[in-house]
Amino acid sequence: MKRARIIHEGVARNAVERDGQLLLDNGRLVPFNAVTWLPPLPDTRLPRTILALGLNYADHAKELAFKAPEEPLVFLKSPSALTGHRQKTMRPAGVEFMHYECELTVIIGKQAKRVKRDDAYDFVAGYTVANDYAVRDYLENWYRPNLRVKNRDGATPIGPWFVDAGNIANPMALALSTTVNGKLTQSGSTKDMIFDVPFLIEYFTSFMTLHPGDLILTGTPDGVVDCRPGDVVVTEIESVGALMNTIE
Amino acid sequence: MKRARIIHEGVARNAVERDGQLLLDNGRLVPFNAVTWLPPLPDTRLPRTILALGLNYADHAKELAFKAPEEPLVFLKSPSALTGHRQKTMRPAGVEFMHYECELTVIIGKQAKRVKRDDAYDFVAGYTVANDYAVRDYLENWYRPNLRVKNRDGATPIGPWFVDAGNIANPMALALSTTVNGKLTQSGSTKDMIFDVPFLIEYFTSFMTLHPGDLILTGTPDGVVDCRPGDVVVTEIESVGALMNTIE
Repeated sequence: MKRARIIHEGVARNAVERDGQLLLDNGRLVPFNAVTWLPPLPDTRLPRTILALGLNYADHAKELAFKAPEEPLVFLKSPSALTGHRQKTMRPAGVEFMHYECELTVIIGKQAKRVKRDDAYDFVAGYTVANDYAVRDYLENWYRPNLRVKNRDGATPIGPWFVDAGNIANPMALALSTTVNGKLTQSGSTKDMIFDVPFLIEYFTSFMTLHPGDLILTGTPDGVVDCRPGDVVVTEIESVGALMNTIE
Repeated sequence: MKRARIIHEGVARNAVERDGQLLLDNGRLVPFNAVTWLPPLPDTRLPRTILALGLNYADHAKELAFKAPEEPLVFLKSPSALTGHRQKTMRPAGVEFMHYECELTVIIGKQAKRVKRDDAYDFVAGYTVANDYAVRDYLENWYRPNLRVKNRDGATPIGPWFVDAGNIANPMALALSTTVNGKLTQSGSTKDMIFDVPFLIEYFTSFMTLHPGDLILTGTPDGVVDCRPGDVVVTEIESVGALMNTIE
């Protein structure tokens, strides 16, 4: 099942994909472009914890001239940073380099504490796509953490779909790609993650509890380029969805 | 007004301080030690954004052998890290250095976006005390952010009180102190913050929206020492409260 959260005729609703359209929770069937897409979280609760990985693909770490980390490099994001499919993301005035990051995003399904690797997938409700834009200008050094780099309002589109975990045969073998104005700029596979999804769930829950609706953004492969106002950026993950965003 | 959120006879309730006791929202008056103290957030909503400052007192930056930052050094925390007054905080097995941090905490009162310094206090509902424990062992370098250092379950006591902003004449001139087993180990004043509360509100809201219940932990002065299991740690801020915690 592919689930969405949308606004239609001024009302926020749950919806599911049905034959290339959206079946709303009031029984109406509407085209994709008739709605405003929200982050695909199943109800109005915000995630309490949004975890995001840095440098979780060896090739991307190399691209940024870093050694791959020996332990997950993780930062938290605020729910305020999220926006939906087909929304606009601001490029701040005067910055020199803002890049997209196509990331497989894990949606936690039940309370998870001290979970072992072998049981990790039992705690996953589903997956979505995130585009975790970064404003490189603000990253003067790593000692100054990445709040302005990664946490501006609406700077992280996610969606369009919450795809049920049962519909993804192997989350660790999905093709990822990004196009900018229709041109392919990033291409990779989740099989190249340094720390895979079961490892991350075991690692996080060894010291903190995850709750339903919490998100893990699992990092991006290499191939990031600067995005300019007007660019249409589509981040796509095989079987999960194609998330569109426009830079403003 | 000093507000609290507590559990009494199995029910979570709002309460206020009344003549050295707690007046519960069901009209009962009970002693402080008859309840379980929760983070003093006025209702059951979790804050969506918890911002915490690093090295926001020049003397503490010096103590850690860092140059004071030129721009706020900020990280996010997950609501799961919070716990209440008189609770226990775990020291992980085998670590060598875990220290307290007494911090004035700002509770946001209304939605705040592009707020100017001169208007900043209009967006503050009140203040509380946080003890933002850090496990120094996990801070191998600043490039690897501080999730395990600062975001373990229950590692951040806050409380006991949500003190209305109107009761604090000048939040930038409050004495802070910490005692460990009754011995004074940290002493400072909020007047020594590098980035003061109005500056921080202007800075954050220049790129992200703050919402009612969001928290800003404003950093700690020098005087941090290692805490061992069994230690009773009291972090106190003049006019705001004395927050007690025991290390386990």
